Amino acid sequence: MNPVIALLGRRLRLAVIGGGPGSFIGPVHRLAARMDDRYDIVAGALSSDPARSIAAGAQLGLAAERCYPDAMALLAAESTRPDGADVVAIMTPNDSHFPFAMAALAQGFDVICDKPMTNSLAQAEQLRQRVQDTGLVYCLTHNYSGYPLVRQARAMVADDQLGEVRLVQIEYVQGGRAQPGPGRTAWKTDPARGGDSLVMGDIGTHAHQLLRFVTGLEVTELAADVGCVVPGNSAHDFAGALLRLQGGARGSFWVTQAAAGVENGLRLRVSGSKGSLEWAQEHPQVLHFKPLGAPAQLRTPRGPGTLPLAGRASRVAAGHPEGFPEAFANLYSDAAEAIAARRAGTTPDPLALHFPNAHDGWVGMRFVNAMIRSSEANGAWTRV
Amino acid sequence: MNPVIALLGRRLRLAVIGGGPGSFIGPVHRLAARMDDRYDIVAGALSSDPARSIAAGAQLGLAAERCYPDAMALLAAESTRPDGADVVAIMTPNDSHFPFAMAALAQGFDVICDKPMTNSLAQAEQLRQRVQDTGLVYCLTHNYSGYPLVRQARAMVADDQLGEVRLVQIEYVQGGRAQPGPGRTAWKTDPARGGDSLVMGDIGTHAHQLLRFVTGLEVTELAADVGCVVPGNSAHDFAGALLRLQGGARGSFWVTQAAAGVENGLRLRVSGSKGSLEWAQEHPQVLHFKPLGAPAQLRTPRGPGTLPLAGRASRVAAGHPEGFPEAFANLYSDAAEAIAARRAGTTPDPLALHFPNAHDGWVGMRFVNAMIRSSEANGAWTRV
Amino acid sequence: MNPVIALLGRRLRLAVIGGGPGSFIGPVHRLAARMDDRYDIVAGALSSDPARSIAAGAQLGLAAERCYPDAMALLAAESTRPDGADVVAIMTPNDSHFPFAMAALAQGFDVICDKPMTNSLAQAEQLRQRVQDTGLVYCLTHNYSGYPLVRQARAMVADDQLGEVRLVQIEYVQGGRAQPGPGRTAWKTDPARGGDSLVMGDIGTHAHQLLRFVTGLEVTELAADVGCVVPGNSAHDFAGALLRLQGGARGSFWVTQAAAGVENGLRLRVSGSKGSLEWAQEHPQVLHFKPLGAPAQLRTPRGPGTLPLAGRASRVAAGHPEGFPEAFANLYSDAAEAIAARRAGTTPDPLALHFPNAHDGWVGMRFVNAMIRSSEANGAWTRV
Amino acid sequence: MNPVIALLGRRLRLAVIGGGPGSFIGPVHRLAARMDDRYDIVAGALSSDPARSIAAGAQLGLAAERCYPDAMALLAAESTRPDGADVVAIMTPNDSHFPFAMAALAQGFDVICDKPMTNSLAQAEQLRQRVQDTGLVYCLTHNYSGYPLVRQARAMVADDQLGEVRLVQIEYVQGGRAQPGPGRTAWKTDPARGGDSLVMGDIGTHAHQLLRFVTGLEVTELAADVGCVVPGNSAHDFAGALLRLQGGARGSFWVTQAAAGVENGLRLRVSGSKGSLEWAQEHPQVLHFKPLGAPAQLRTPRGPGTLPLAGRASRVAAGHPEGFPEAFANLYSDAAEAIAARRAGTTPDPLALHFPNAHDGWVGMRFVNAMIRSSEANGAWTRV
Repeated sequence: MNPVIALLGRRLRLAVIGGGPGSFIGPVHRLAARMDDRYDIVAGALSSDPARSIAAGAQLGLAAERCYPDAMALLAAESTRPDGADVVAIMTPNDSHFPFAMAALAQGFDVICDKPMTNSLAQAEQLRQRVQDTGLVYCLTHNYSGYPLVRQARAMVADDQLGEVRLVQIEYVQGGRAQPGPGRTAWKTDPARGGDSLVMGDIGTHAHQLLRFVTGLEVTELAADVGCVVPGNSAHDFAGALLRLQGGARGSFWVTQAAAGVENGLRLRVSGSKGSLEWAQEHPQVLHFKPLGAPAQLRTPRGPGTLPLAGRASRVAAGHPEGFPEAFANLYSDAAEAIAARRAGTTPDPLALHFPNAHDGWVGMRFVNAMIRSSEANGAWTRV
Repeated sequence: MNPVIALLGRRLRLAVIGGGPGSFIGPVHRLAARMDDRYDIVAGALSSDPARSIAAGAQLGLAAERCYPDAMALLAAESTRPDGADVVAIMTPNDSHFPFAMAALAQGFDVICDKPMTNSLAQAEQLRQRVQDTGLVYCLTHNYSGYPLVRQARAMVADDQLGEVRLVQIEYVQGGRAQPGPGRTAWKTDPARGGDSLVMGDIGTHAHQLLRFVTGLEVTELAADVGCVVPGNSAHDFAGALLRLQGGARGSFWVTQAAAGVENGLRLRVSGSKGSLEWAQEHPQVLHFKPLGAPAQLRTPRGPGTLPLAGRASRVAAGHPEGFPEAFANLYSDAAEAIAARRAGTTPDPLALHFPNAHDGWVGMRFVNAMIRSSEANGAWTRV
Repeated sequence: MNPVIALLGRRLRLAVIGGGPGSFIGPVHRLAARMDDRYDIVAGALSSDPARSIAAGAQLGLAAERCYPDAMALLAAESTRPDGADVVAIMTPNDSHFPFAMAALAQGFDVICDKPMTNSLAQAEQLRQRVQDTGLVYCLTHNYSGYPLVRQARAMVADDQLGEVRLVQIEYVQGGRAQPGPGRTAWKTDPARGGDSLVMGDIGTHAHQLLRFVTGLEVTELAADVGCVVPGNSAHDFAGALLRLQGGARGSFWVTQAAAGVENGLRLRVSGSKGSLEWAQEHPQVLHFKPLGAPAQLRTPRGPGTLPLAGRASRVAAGHPEGFPEAFANLYSDAAEAIAARRAGTTPDPLALHFPNAHDGWVGMRFVNAMIRSSEANGAWTRV
Repeated sequence: MNPVIALLGRRLRLAVIGGGPGSFIGPVHRLAARMDDRYDIVAGALSSDPARSIAAGAQLGLAAERCYPDAMALLAAESTRPDGADVVAIMTPNDSHFPFAMAALAQGFDVICDKPMTNSLAQAEQLRQRVQDTGLVYCLTHNYSGYPLVRQARAMVADDQLGEVRLVQIEYVQGGRAQPGPGRTAWKTDPARGGDSLVMGDIGTHAHQLLRFVTGLEVTELAADVGCVVPGNSAHDFAGALLRLQGGARGSFWVTQAAAGVENGLRLRVSGSKGSLEWAQEHPQVLHFKPLGAPAQLRTPRGPGTLPLAGRASRVAAGHPEGFPEAFANLYSDAAEAIAARRAGTTPDPLALHFPNAHDGWVGMRFVNAMIRSSEANGAWTRV
């Protein structure tokens, strides 16, 4: 049954910052929040333009007095209402993730925030510390880790079904920036707002997190090339690296948004001493497992061999595909369990605690930083 | 924006009948209702056991006074509350679809109902007439027609991109009944409750509706073999037929739940004079289009060439898979548009009116009936 | 090592009848004969036109005196040369398969012949009897049974890895006749030359043989619809049937050459009490095995779990695809083993004896005959 | 028709060096030579052990006097026979490629040689010069470039269907060295015989050649990591690199033989300004083409849109898969056309001249050399 209602007798109250008209990710966050009925969206500051912000809230059906002109007004008002929001979800341009998250934590809200965590490593360190100090829940929406078969992969590695991890290939290939120009989201190409590296902030951090999530290993060193291949683009549109991981595994990292015609090609391969795994986001309901010396297998969500971490991430029976919204929702729903448990003073199911947190976000920013440093140092091997 | 809020200033109020503890489809219906924020679930009679019914409502977070002991109590009470439900969703065993739908219509509710429409053709005819007489909305959840690429296929056929349809292959292959025994849902194997043909009611009607939905053609005649291949099973576990369709197209129909190890293999192929389409539910985000004399294409949701009926059925950008819950939700959301328009006295977007309705349900029951008649007549060609 | 050289100290001498300029299948036969170095092509009557026949032989590099004007001349001459052909391969239009095969047998040649075996059931019965009486080797090139993974499927069924077979789906979907007209091979649409049913002779017999080959079961009864869906075509371009097999299994049969845009879609699925197999000719190096209650597997040629009948059908290591020519060649090479053993007076490896023979050809003609009878009897269930 | 017979009135006479009992690649070479009937294998020195060499020749059915005890004896004798070999094919361990090729060229033979061309860059330079000086044909069997769809990819790039090439991903992932030990071919792990880098010689040169072949671009600079991840292995079992290519394209290179359970995963992706291509050796009959702004396409051999360079590389109709042996044979057959034209004093079809030659082999050795130098220089960007 619904664990939030079971613990609190009600759903969590969620306030949303950002995600107004024209946003791709705003509707995804709100859908993810509704998916498993663990949140009521009660308040919003959906746009940086006060009038648009209020109008957008009304269109969502929010009560008029909880449609705020801006994020700080929302935080101030909701923190004092008796029925105020429990949780704040932030889905604004990258440069405001840090101030809004810090302000929300300061006023006692649990926080769900879109990636990247911050625009600088220093901010990430500061935010990570703040989360730790407050004890509040912080969930960073590296949503690809929410796919059932990504969790199955993580669980299989943790269960030693792959043996010692030796080789990793992580790639994230898109085509959205194959033609010059700022595209639909102009702020992303402005380093002051989007961060130092467009491709790393947009998708590189996802790729890095997916790699860590499944293998349980940290990248220790890398040799990188980060730059731009599309004439007329100024922001980074590709990043490649060779990787060295804990325990001696080696890896290849390749992300780009300049691959004309490609949709959303996030793909992971992991080889250990006992076999290999392959997963691709565009066909998320298949996990290829190739055990050494036995026939290759196709694992499916809730199919035979499903481990508990994966099983709980599906809503329907084997053969009934779930997708990107459900994966995203798994982070919201797990965070809800963690938040409800914190509020109820209980211990959450450990399987609910696999959502990316402030530590993960900080490690991701360290990785971005090392990528850029290595690339600037002519590809020198660089500690993460 | 949310068309229901735009028209009515609020979400539709939904009451649910059935779908309590242990149900597979109940949570799917409720998730589908939440998906696009067009409904508030306000009341429920979730189980045929009064005590369990009330307890299950509480677990969903329903207000105590709207957790009803049974369906008829719900209908009576909600029809008189000033804030009573607008719509009733029925997800009970098959034999109660008819009485609950008739009762709901009689009290002025729009109705969403799980398939099959009824357990007999006579009931289906009666219900179809009642819907027509009342002018209320009736949505039958043949959910597979909600997939974006199924709608793309329908739109491509309607747009003459395939030319004249000549050949159809429809199959629905599952493995859930490969081992003898009643399985998880014992009522389904009881003809009095599940209907005359287990496999036809469970999945055959889905297959038939998918075929009609995409081709826009009716099956006119069939020669069928319906029976049981698993020793120890009494209910039908397979049904095959040769088909003749309007306009002279020929087809193959094959459904079974006895294919050990297979998950949920609903697959459609349509060939016309200009090319062929192939779609498979287990990989729903790919539509193969093989035009005569040109390279085969892979169509994706919101990818290039997407037609409006398909484009509106996706929530996220190309390359971000959606799945079974989203397809299911498309029926709920389209029905919501139709219901809101009816209540507001406006005309809905014609693209919202592609959900299966009472006519479709009746045609489906005619098909089941013809399958059984043909099989009993030693496979004689039989008019549908 | 080369078993023919080992037994005979030389390759088999092969004479070819048919397959001259413009033929698709002629070069395939000759390539198949060369593939494993078990034959030398020493003589030919490649065309029904004497001058073209002799010219075509020269272009193949045959000795001038062994380029014959016609088949009967070839048989007469080669049967008397001291270094005359051992084996005759027939790849002419269907109506000559019977007389040429009978004549070749009469003069003591082993025979390899393209399908269908004959154009009438009576001829097939007569030929089958003649082969039996002579003790000569007769190989019918239902080449799809030569694929390594088709043999793996057969061996897995025989090894009881699927349990009792319950359900079969066999389909062969092509697009070559989607447009009206005789196409490249006009003789095929002439019943006097191509046989009673174009689609059944061309591909229906392949489908039927594949089904028998893998399951080891005979079709006992069928209910069929055979006809034409392309306006302007007179010859059959589709055939569908419901099947009943030995042991009670049920099946679906669907073959057509009118599916615009489809290349060569021969596909087989078999479900037994322990699991299901799926194989498709367009991706022949993958065999899907879905065991009941365990993860689905992808079997590959020479991959883990390969059984001996399949292992001997591959030439290269796992991961190195072989294709249609190699599958065709497997029949030639197995027939060579049988022929060499016969000539050497030894017993061949039983694994070499899985090529289709005269009995198989006769059963195939019985199947075609039953399809037509059932279709003419309005789909009545008909004994094969 | 057979262009060799057309030009010379006979097949080419081929002598083989290496490829005796236990060899994987020897039978492949001989099969490739037979495939299109352009060669007669007339002589052999199949093993470095004289007695085994002679016995192996007999098992192939070679005339006794042309079964040689060693390569040098073969070259000496065949160069003086009136009916001596025209061409020598070398399929010995890597360290003998150079001396045998040099000796064969010195005696006027055209040469077909397995890769890598030599074991050192200096040898490669010397051999390349010798080929140029003699005017003889030298074909290096980078067989993957013989696949029809690899040639289609090359032709599409050359035809500007991809626009300016910007991004390349080349990977070759195998599992044969996932377990410690020398494996089946112990000489490969001995640097004196196998070369400086096992993985680069075995598969890295294939990957590099495939990249060059399709894009028509040279790698100008690389940053590499070459080493060993399997404990107990001494020879290189992985190599990764970041690439810079002519014209500014960037690339990722990843090859390994340590990916447990993986068969033969050679995969290429190329993105240009107009679209992207994807090809994988394990499914060689599909080329994914994703044009910018139009639906993704699946190209097939001889399917619609096939360009002449690809069309001539297939033997059978669309939908009839060919595989590894046919791709290998395409090199042999093209080389035969070049050799026959040279001998006949005519100009070969330019489309026959796309087989890898001595220049390609030398560039490949430069690439291997640069990989090792970069890796030893801590991943420094290194000119090729």
